[in-house]
Formats: sequence, structure tokens, C-alpha cells
Amino acid sequence: MARLVKTKIEFEGTIREEEVVVEHDDLAVWAADSPMTHVGAPTPRVDGIARVTGTAEYTYDVRLPGMLWGAIKRSPHPHARVRRIDADRARSLPAVVDVLTADECDSVEWHGESALIDRTVRYHGDEVACVVAENEQAALDALDAITVDYEVLHHVVDMEAAAEPTAPQIHPDSSPGRNRTAEPSRYLRGDVEAGRRAAAVTVSARYRTPSALHASFETHGSVARWESDELTVWDSTQNIFGVRSSLASTFGVPLAKVRVISRYMGGGFGSKNDLGKHTALAALASRRTGRPVRIMLSREEEFLAAGHRPPVIVDVELGATRDGALTFIRAHSMTSPGAYGSGGFQVAGPFREYYRCDNVETIQEAVYTNTGPACAFRAPGYVEGTFALESAMDELAAELSMDPLALRVANYAALNQPRAMPYSQKHLLESYRSGADAIDWDARRATARPAHAPTARGIGMATQGWGGGGAPPSYALVRLSPDGTFDVLTGTHDLGTGTRTVMTQIAAQELGVAMERVRITIGDTLTCPYSLLSAGSLTVPSVGPAVRAAAADARAQILDIAGSLLDTDPKGLTIADGVISSASNRDTRVTVDDVARKIGNYMVIGKGARGPNPSDVSVNTFGAQFVEVEVDTATGSVRVLRVIAAHEFGRVINPLTLSSQIEGGVFQATGFALMEERLMDPATGRFINANLSEYRLPTIADVPRVESLFIGPPDEASNNTGAKGAGEPPIIPTAAAIANAVSDAIGVRIRELPLTRERVLGAIAAREGR
Amino acid sequence: MARLVKTKIEFEGTIREEEVVVEHDDLAVWAADSPMTHVGAPTPRVDGIARVTGTAEYTYDVRLPGMLWGAIKRSPHPHARVRRIDADRARSLPAVVDVLTADECDSVEWHGESALIDRTVRYHGDEVACVVAENEQAALDALDAITVDYEVLHHVVDMEAAAEPTAPQIHPDSSPGRNRTAEPSRYLRGDVEAGRRAAAVTVSARYRTPSALHASFETHGSVARWESDELTVWDSTQNIFGVRSSLASTFGVPLAKVRVISRYMGGGFGSKNDLGKHTALAALASRRTGRPVRIMLSREEEFLAAGHRPPVIVDVELGATRDGALTFIRAHSMTSPGAYGSGGFQVAGPFREYYRCDNVETIQEAVYTNTGPACAFRAPGYVEGTFALESAMDELAAELSMDPLALRVANYAALNQPRAMPYSQKHLLESYRSGADAIDWDARRATARPAHAPTARGIGMATQGWGGGGAPPSYALVRLSPDGTFDVLTGTHDLGTGTRTVMTQIAAQELGVAMERVRITIGDTLTCPYSLLSAGSLTVPSVGPAVRAAAADARAQILDIAGSLLDTDPKGLTIADGVISSASNRDTRVTVDDVARKIGNYMVIGKGARGPNPSDVSVNTFGAQFVEVEVDTATGSVRVLRVIAAHEFGRVINPLTLSSQIEGGVFQATGFALMEERLMDPATGRFINANLSEYRLPTIADVPRVESLFIGPPDEASNNTGAKGAGEPPIIPTAAAIANAVSDAIGVRIRELPLTRERVLGAIAAREGR
Repeated sequence: MARLVKTKIEFEGTIREEEVVVEHDDLAVWAADSPMTHVGAPTPRVDGIARVTGTAEYTYDVRLPGMLWGAIKRSPHPHARVRRIDADRARSLPAVVDVLTADECDSVEWHGESALIDRTVRYHGDEVACVVAENEQAALDALDAITVDYEVLHHVVDMEAAAEPTAPQIHPDSSPGRNRTAEPSRYLRGDVEAGRRAAAVTVSARYRTPSALHASFETHGSVARWESDELTVWDSTQNIFGVRSSLASTFGVPLAKVRVISRYMGGGFGSKNDLGKHTALAALASRRTGRPVRIMLSREEEFLAAGHRPPVIVDVELGATRDGALTFIRAHSMTSPGAYGSGGFQVAGPFREYYRCDNVETIQEAVYTNTGPACAFRAPGYVEGTFALESAMDELAAELSMDPLALRVANYAALNQPRAMPYSQKHLLESYRSGADAIDWDARRATARPAHAPTARGIGMATQGWGGGGAPPSYALVRLSPDGTFDVLTGTHDLGTGTRTVMTQIAAQELGVAMERVRITIGDTLTCPYSLLSAGSLTVPSVGPAVRAAAADARAQILDIAGSLLDTDPKGLTIADGVISSASNRDTRVTVDDVARKIGNYMVIGKGARGPNPSDVSVNTFGAQFVEVEVDTATGSVRVLRVIAAHEFGRVINPLTLSSQIEGGVFQATGFALMEERLMDPATGRFINANLSEYRLPTIADVPRVESLFIGPPDEASNNTGAKGAGEPPIIPTAAAIANAVSDAIGVRIRELPLTRERVLGAIAAREGR
Repeated sequence: MARLVKTKIEFEGTIREEEVVVEHDDLAVWAADSPMTHVGAPTPRVDGIARVTGTAEYTYDVRLPGMLWGAIKRSPHPHARVRRIDADRARSLPAVVDVLTADECDSVEWHGESALIDRTVRYHGDEVACVVAENEQAALDALDAITVDYEVLHHVVDMEAAAEPTAPQIHPDSSPGRNRTAEPSRYLRGDVEAGRRAAAVTVSARYRTPSALHASFETHGSVARWESDELTVWDSTQNIFGVRSSLASTFGVPLAKVRVISRYMGGGFGSKNDLGKHTALAALASRRTGRPVRIMLSREEEFLAAGHRPPVIVDVELGATRDGALTFIRAHSMTSPGAYGSGGFQVAGPFREYYRCDNVETIQEAVYTNTGPACAFRAPGYVEGTFALESAMDELAAELSMDPLALRVANYAALNQPRAMPYSQKHLLESYRSGADAIDWDARRATARPAHAPTARGIGMATQGWGGGGAPPSYALVRLSPDGTFDVLTGTHDLGTGTRTVMTQIAAQELGVAMERVRITIGDTLTCPYSLLSAGSLTVPSVGPAVRAAAADARAQILDIAGSLLDTDPKGLTIADGVISSASNRDTRVTVDDVARKIGNYMVIGKGARGPNPSDVSVNTFGAQFVEVEVDTATGSVRVLRVIAAHEFGRVINPLTLSSQIEGGVFQATGFALMEERLMDPATGRFINANLSEYRLPTIADVPRVESLFIGPPDEASNNTGAKGAGEPPIIPTAAAIANAVSDAIGVRIRELPLTRERVLGAIAAREGR
């Protein structure tokens, strides 16, 4: 039964309380002695063959009859006013059907700091015009036929410079101060000054992380089609319901007239959480032309305009007593959303949460720059905050002459201090212990390293904290077909993470049938009931419980009918391996297939909802990573040899896909730590490595061996599966642990990522006084 | 709550009893004083703009990335053995990807009398090979590159000839006798010989109706795509769940792995009730090539191979007392399913049901011929049986010197004699009266007609009976979006009949919101819950009640939440015009939109099922049509001036779409009565007018003015809407009424359709002894 309740929702480091309608499910977490046939078993991807054989339809693949191809003209200037735009020649080209400029887009509401196509461009890559044509080449050719008369304005791409009072102003009405996006966001607990006085030792340092690019296999893109007043959009998105909602308000149509489809995706990593301008342009062009319109971004456009992890600067101060107890933590961070980016960027989270400390102050500020829009990128803020905090913790340990791991154990946070409540469970000490054992921490940290060898090895570690508890609302339907096979329908997404597989396991487990009897359908706002966006490590702990509840509802309906067929009380019946049998009478049995055949096209439709979160405990994930690196002291090259990733996710639904998540996170973080960096030319304001040859991503030759350790039992307070989200945690501590290991290897601290050869050699030279 | 019950299911003239799982709904038919805002209102098509602007996606429009185009090579011979087929040259053509012949199709199960591609061809147009190529022209060109060595066999295309012992045998194992499809099907009630003895007057005549073609705007066609082991088929079908089921068994895959989509259709009229060979060929070719495959039939192929109304011969004997009471009815019919056609062809139905008569015998037989497969065509059998019976009734009236309408009234059947049960309601006498009044029957029948005028006018009428009560199982879901708009999901079809509109009216009515707040989605086995096929006048009375029940369920959930918001008992709340209010306290009110916004993405999902049929009454439709014709006695040309169609369908959901159904039926019947006829050349066995220039369909210049009269109140025993099916009834009596009117005009009876100029002139000549 549905009711209105207050519930806390944690998403990417922020908590908000909302009154929502929830349905309780009365399912307890599977008991320890339940026969777990599918859940927990290493299970290959159910969509693996379709993906690798190329038969799976991605947004990129969608072709519609009469479809037009769209291309976007983008500004070469980081800051300029469009004085005049001449699209007449483009419009007259034979295969060109329509050209949209700011004039043609004025009818469309665009939320946020800008119009759909603004008359001022604010970054290299900003949208200036959109051409739709009969084919792709014609659309691209027509872009060159559009002439734009720009009034070039002063620009600023560096955020420290943008914060200066003399900087060019990017938005006219930046009320909190020149280019500041808002008043700084402050958090305080206790008395930092008292903490500072109580400290025997303090460290204070500035840490920097670069802007990194998501570089998803599949770029952003959409195909939009209006059929009269009904809009269907195929979109490479992590948030079909969010995009539907934004499209409905952008175009002023009811939600029920908008359908968004995202069947197969080639990654997103947070960059596909929101409606993109290219999507709205495709929809607008389709409405104007009466034909379907496809706009897929090129790799260059993807890099210029489709989001990135913003650069961060954090000034950290830590103080501790002589025996290592933290007396205060202070962190002041600055970041930039680019010219228009979206928020949800909690650099401060780790400082507030990771360690027991009564006196904590964090200040976060953000300034606009003439760069592309930033957006969420896998654990936004936490990757950067953890790098700063965990580097500083190692520096503090050095000051204290303490073992870095011992320092962390000494400041273990048993409670969630910001939320002032206990954790549902926390096995971080076990993660520390298991990781340390695996890498032989105590013995190796005690061994002095030869600082001048041609290669220097070092080990380091860092802590991970994150939400990952999931939240309502998410829903699922489970439908029985007359041959005993099942459809699971839920409006979630599979970014490549294995959602289809994990949800199929949960449904098959609850239904008591083979995996092959279950087909999972996701990514369609029309076909599937609502689910939360697939971001913030939400999917498994939010959608999984809904799928389980729907399967349980379908199972109960099947058992009711089986009970009448077998002339027995359905309460005494169970299903295993597709056989329904009575616990009390072993001869009383019938197969699910028999029941299905008997009931023919009677539709058993199970409905399931994600229940509310517990109000008295905080559900979180924890972990620690231990890494070993080898530094070539002649070239400065860093090689990560090995990563032990010891994480607590509650129940492991699928060890295979969970290991893949961990490996993917570690690999992505390795690139972030060692080589990835968006390069903006301060003079021209241009993005100078917006391509895959100059923006260096790690290849298979660059990535370390990863050993995943799954720590702790199912989290019984979390949800009916006992599982927590694992999308983001694996990427959080890696860069910090690598930096700590490099420092261990070369005996000197580098406080800026990536750890390029130049920086490593520079640090070695500085150490040696060269 | 679901339970197993026995229920009677009536479909196209046959009744079967099945034990099925049904869910009861406890909804009574809307009370007479309910404010009927949407149901009953003349409502334009909700999909009208999408259809007429060409933005609606039909199967014909589907394009998929990498899609191949298929074309089918068909036999030019009506009967032959394929000795050898050489497809090597076709296979070597540059754009050809695959060629399927019998050899390549052996792996696929094909149900019925033949293989998917047989090695014996049995009609002009039978499948011989299938080419798939990169484009349509290449596929068509490749057909000519295939050489087939045929051993031509003797053929027979006339069914009387096919029944002769010397006829060529079409299927080797026709056990009931040469070319007979089965033992004749006999029905007997009472004592026909006693009835014959009791008769004062008898008539005995042979009636013939031609083979007619459905000629849907959209030909048959499909696009098939395998994604790994999952098959999706876009199909122009009236039966997505039936096609899904046949595909699953044909290809040996679970139902949950097969998805069938039929979003918009250009007609079907019964020809698209089953899986077609072209569909299975597309699916097989797609599986072999790993690419999507499209096969749409050309108009010629559609006529040759995609079904038709089979030709019928009926020998009728009627006997009556001097005052017109029928003492016996005897009808012996013969038809031909072609070489492979499907059944469900009840020529005998009208003889058993229309009139009160205790002594009735019907015999139906069918023989194979070397012609294309017959299939259901709008009221299969009843159109033909009604022509024969209602012509014979007029002949009997003439023998008795009775008014034909008075003869019918004298034999009014208050009970359903074959089923031995009362009707839920029957207002046929009212139909007779209303129709007769409208055409001024009594006065005009009494007026002698000038038989030799250059134009002769006449009037005639005929009776209509049919099922139309609908049946379970059918299901619907109704889902609320956060802006107060609704999705209605149900796996039915819209052949062009207005299903979307009518279902939207029912949902909006029950929800108490505007039509624009509701979006209806149909025609997708994955998105939508099960519904019966859209045939047999099933849709409105089967799916409508499920939609209403689902809307009522959603409404109850909304009222529950509104109750908690308003702090009042939800039982006292109602919804009208989108406002939820309390009957007892007028200030207690909140809008549906407010509730929807409040509950955000909480998914209100209402589930509804079509309840079981009543077991003690028969739910049927009844009607009568009265027509006026003008015959040019010099040319033999017949013009139908006016048709009064007085039908009883229970509640009228939408007078606009119902009138369209009636008009469409009358127009189609006008073509059948006057001009349409498939022409088979007996010598060559070829179909000689398989095109729209020589197969004459009525144009707008040929069709009469139609006045529709809706007779009787909602049928409270039928289902929760009180509505009955109207797809077929309008076509049933028209041809009979036209023939009776022509006879009235020219004073002589023509017993064979179509009433071509040649036949009319011949009849006039015969009357005049020329």
C-alpha cells in the first residue's frame, strides 16, 4: 500500500529530505541459508553476445525513414558576441532542409544560464547554429557555408584568473561576485580554531587536480521524431525519465506525449545525466521539418562541449595530537563549472566524513570560466577531495613519523558525523586489514627504499567513502508468458555496467527459474515503469529491490494459481528450478511451465517498488585501495604494478560484473592519476587536445593488475537485496593511493595530478636540490 | 483476484468452451445518470493528424541500420514440382547477401499443410525462393537470376471441378476424399423431413458468391531483426501476440525473447490474423545474415498470396406454412480455402441463428483448389450465408405473397436457438421498424414499379446477426506521470478502426480527465500487456472493459493518496474534469495534477482485466439494412443510392468512429455486391486480375449515402462498458439487401454476385424471354 513518507535521498555527496510516496515491500533480505542459485554466482553478461556481435542497437545505430542528419556549428572563440550570422547560402544548398540559429530557437525554453542557442558564445565549442540535411556530409558541408560575424570579447579559461576582480565577466548577472557561480558553500562542525590550538602537529598544502574527459566509447547523440504531437527521442542517456521530463517542459507538451529510449549505451560516467542541447536541437529541428532528425556528436564535439570533470584546487589543513588524533580539518576548494556546467560537485565530502574529527570546516567555491560545461564524472568531487585529503593524511603521518595506515585506523569514524547517525554497517577496518595483508604492508613500509636506483618502487594506500545506498522511487514489472518465460520491465539503463545481467539474476533468483527464462527490458520510458537515473551508484540498490519485489509479486500470483490447480494452500508452496512444490507433501508438485500453459494468456503481472530507506542509519560504501608503483627515476615514468581494491558493497550480486566495475574504476583513475588532462591555451582560450591522439587515455599496456576483495556481509538495513552501489567507489581512492605510492617510491610529494614524467622528474630534481 | 473458470468464447461464428484464468472486475456498467463526458461523444481520431500528415510510423516505414531488402520468387504455375532450382547466379550478384530456397528453409518448422518453402507449388504465386540484398532493386533483379526447373502438374482452380473424382489431387494425403479438406461439417436440430412435410410452400435455390480480395491500403509486410537470441518483428498484423507465439514455436525460442510490433496499420480485414510466410522468411533470413531484413509484399503479391474471401456456393431450401412460419431450413455450402487456407468460415451461421425454426440442417464442405490461400475476411461466411439466406427469404416471401419484412418479423427469434439460451438483449424488431420508417418501406413496397423504364428503382432489406460480445482475456495498464498525464498500455491494434480513440475515451471517462491528458499505446508485445487479436469484432468489447478496469484501478490509487492529502476518506471522493472533490464537503478538493506533482515519480500503475462472460445469456449484435437502388435497364448498371443501417451495438462509445465502421462495411459490401471478383483462368490456372486496375474496387463515386441508426441501450450483461463489437456487422447484410433491392427493381432474381452489368442485363433478358 502506498503512503506519503519523508525519506532521505543521498545523491553524489548531497543529502536531501523529501516527502515522497513509497510502497513498502515486506521482503526481508534473503536469509543466510537461502539457496542462492543465481544471486552471488559469477554470471556472464546476458547481453554480451548482442553487444560484441554488433547486433545490439545503440542510439548511434538508429535509422528512421525520412531521417535527416544534423550537424552543429560551434564557436572557434572562447568568448564573443555574434553580431550577425548569414545562413542564406547554407539554406540554399540542395540537400539542406533547415538551419537553426538563435532566431529559430527563441521559441524554445532553455533552462539554466543560457538560451538553446545564445547570441553570446562563452567557450570554444559553444553552439552557434545547427544544420539539418538529407545526409551527413551535406550537413557538415553546410556548416562551412554559414558565415558568422563575431565581436570577439576578452576571455579567461583559468579559474584563479577568473576569480580576479579584473577578469572578463562571463555572465552579466553574476551577482555573488565576478564570475562566482554562487556564494561559497560552507560547512562547519565544532570549533576549528580550538582544534588548531589543540594540535601538536599541523600540515597545510595546496593540491590540484586537472580537468579530465569522460571519453565514453559512444559519444552523446540523439534521434528525435515527432509523430503529430507525440515526441520520441532515442538518446544516449543515463536518465531517460529525466530527459523526458526536460523535453516535456522545454517543448511544452505533457509527459505522456514524450517517449525517451536508451536501449544500449557505450558509457556515460555521469556525462549523460541531463538533457543535452544537441537533443533539444534535434527535437526542435524535427518539429520544424516534420521529419526525424539525428544528431550525434563527433569525438571533437564530445570533448569540446559534452562535459568534463572540472579542475579543482584544494587548500587543506590538518592538525593532530602527537599520537595522531585529528584535532581539526579544514579544506577550501575551488572549481569551475566552465561557462555553464551543472553542479553536484562535493569536493568537501571526504573531509567531512572519512575520519572522526569534531572540528571540521569546509568551504567550496566555483567560478565560471570560458571553457566547456562541466558535469558529473564518476564520483564527482570525491575523487578530487580524496586525492587532497589522503595525500595530506600521508603528509601528516610523515610529520608524526607514524605509519600512514595506523594514522587512518587511529581516526576511524564509527559514526556518520555529518548526519549524526550510525552506519547500517561499516567494515572499513577489515578493508584496511585485508588490503594491507595482500600487499604485505607492514613489512614493506618498514623497508627503506633505495632512492637513487634507476627504478624506485613504492606502495601507498587511500581510503574510500561514498553513499551507494540507493533510494526510492524505482519500480519494476514482471510478466509471465504462456510458455513459462518472464519479462522484467524497469526503466533503468545499462551504461555497460551489467544492469541487465544483475537484474536478470535477481528476478530469476526470486522466481526460482533459470536465467534463460527471463528477458530484461530497460531504457524506454514507455515500455518500462519509472526508475531513477543510472548515476550516483544508485542502480543496483534502487532498481534491484524493485525487481525483486515485482518478481516476488509475480511468484505469489503463480503460487495462488498453482495452489488451486494442486488443491493446496499456496502458502505452503515454493519454486525452485522451475518446479513448484509443497514443503509438506513432496508429491504435490507442478512446473512453472505447466502453470503457465494452463493459464495461457492470463497475464500474471507482478508490480514491485523500491521501499523507503531506513531513517535511523546511514547506508554507505567503504573501501581502501593499496597500490604498488614503479618509478623510472631517469625518465620520470610511473608504472602502477598492482592495485588491491578492498571494498564493502554489502551483497555481491555478481562477482564478475562487480570485478569489472572495480577494474574499470581503477583503470579510469590510473589515467586520471598519470596522464589525462584537458589542455586549454590561455592565450587563445582554445581547447588544444580535443582528440584521442593528444588527450592520452590509458591503454591496456598502461593498466595495473587489479585484485578485488569484497568485504563484509550483505547489508541487511539497506534494501531487500542487501546490496549497495559499486559504480563510483572503485574510482575514488586510486589516484590518491598512486600519489602516495609514488611519494613512497621517490621520497618526495607531488601535489598536482596528473603525475606526468615532467612533474616526477621535477620533484626528484627538487628533492636533490638540482 | 484471479481464478480458473470455464468460459464460452465466440469467434467468427464458432463457440468454444475453455477453462481460463480470469479476473473479475466489480465495475458495473456506467449508470444511466452518470455524467458521460467522453464516452458517447462524437470524438475525432486521436491519431488522425499523425496519420494524415505521414508522421505515423507504419511497418512499411521501418528502416533499421544495416537492413536488407527481401523479395520472394513465386511460382507462375498453379501446380508443379520443383525439379531443380539454380540460385548460384543470383547468389553471386554483387548486392545479394543470401538466397533461401526449400533447402535453406528445412530447418524451420512450418505448421499446416506445407513447408515454409515447399518443393511442390500449389498455386500461381506460391513461394519458391527468397532473396535478400542490400537494396530493393537488387533483390528484385536477383529473382530473375534464379532459374527453376518445374515439372508442371495438372491443376484445378474451380471448386466444383476439384470435388470431382477425376480432379488432380492437390495434397497427397487428403484423406476425407479427393481434395476435400475434411469430412463435411453437419449441424442438425429438429427433424428436417418433418419440417418439409409441414411446409405449405417451399423454395429451393443455389446461390453463389465470388472470391473477393481484402485490398488493404497497406500490403502485408514485416521487418525482422535478431539481436543475439532476441527477435523483434515489426509486422503489419492484427494479432501481435498470435504472431509472437507462432514465431516462438517456428524458431524454437521462448516467448519472452520475441517481440512483435504493429503500431500503425493500413487495414487488415481479417487477412492479417496469422503469421505469414513472408514474415517467417524475413526472420529466417535475418537469423542467417545477422542483419535486419524487410519484406513487404507488392500489390500483385498481396493479391496472389496474402489471402482472399473464398468463393461460396450454397444450396438453400426453405419451407413455411401458408402464414409464413418457417417449418424447416436446409443449407448445403461448399467453399474452397485455396491450396492452404485457414478456416473459421461459418457460412451456416445465419441459417442456424437468424430465424426461429425448430428444424434446421446445415452442411458445410470445403475442397482444396490450386488457388492462393483463403483467410478470414470481415464476417467470414456470414456475408455469404446472409446473401443466400436473405435472398431465399425474399423468394419465399414472393411465393407466399407476403411482404419480405413481415416474413422476417413473423419468424423473429427471441432465443439463441443453437446455444439454447436467451440473448442478453435483442432489439432487432426496433431495427426493422426504424429502418423501414426511414426508407418508407410500407408505402414504397406497395407501389408497383415500372419494369420497362430506362431506370428502375427498387428497395430491399436484409437482416444481420453476429457475435460481437467479446471475451477474456485482455489486459491493460494505466500509468500516471508526475504532470498528471496518463499512459494507457494494451496490446491491441488499430487497423484504422479508431481503437486508439475509443480506448482513450474510455480511459479519460473513467479517470475523469480530459482526453488530451491520456496517451494510448498499443501494438507492442513488449510494451503492452496481452490483448486478444483485433478480429471477430472483439476489440471494443474485449479490450475496452480492460482499459476501463485499469483506469478505475489507477483512479482508486490516486484517490487513496488524495484522501491522505485531504485528510478524508477516499471513498467519498470523485474525479471530474481533473478535479478530485468530496461529495459531502465541496471545499475538500484538489486537482489530479496537484496529486501527481505531489507524488512525483511514484508510479501509479492501474491494472485491469477483461472479466468473464455471462454464462446464462448470449451476447450478440443485431441489425438490418434497407437499401434503395437504381438500375439502368439499358446498360445493366446498378447504383446504390442509399443505405439505412440500423444496428444494435449496445453502448455507442464514439458515434463518429462507429459511423465510419458502418460506412466502411457498407462500402466494402457494395463492391462485393456489384463489382469485385477475383478471376482465375481455368485453362492456365492463373489469377488474371491481380492488380488494382483490373480488380475493380468501388471508388467514392460508386458508394451510397449511408444513414446509420444506433438501436437499443447499453448492453448491461455484456461487459463493464455495455458496448459490443461493430467491426463486422455492417458488412453482413448489405449485399443481400442490394440483391433484394435489385430484384425489386427489375422484377427478377439474380442469385450470383457480383451483380455485374452482364448478369443484370442477362436477368432482364431472361425475364423478358429474350
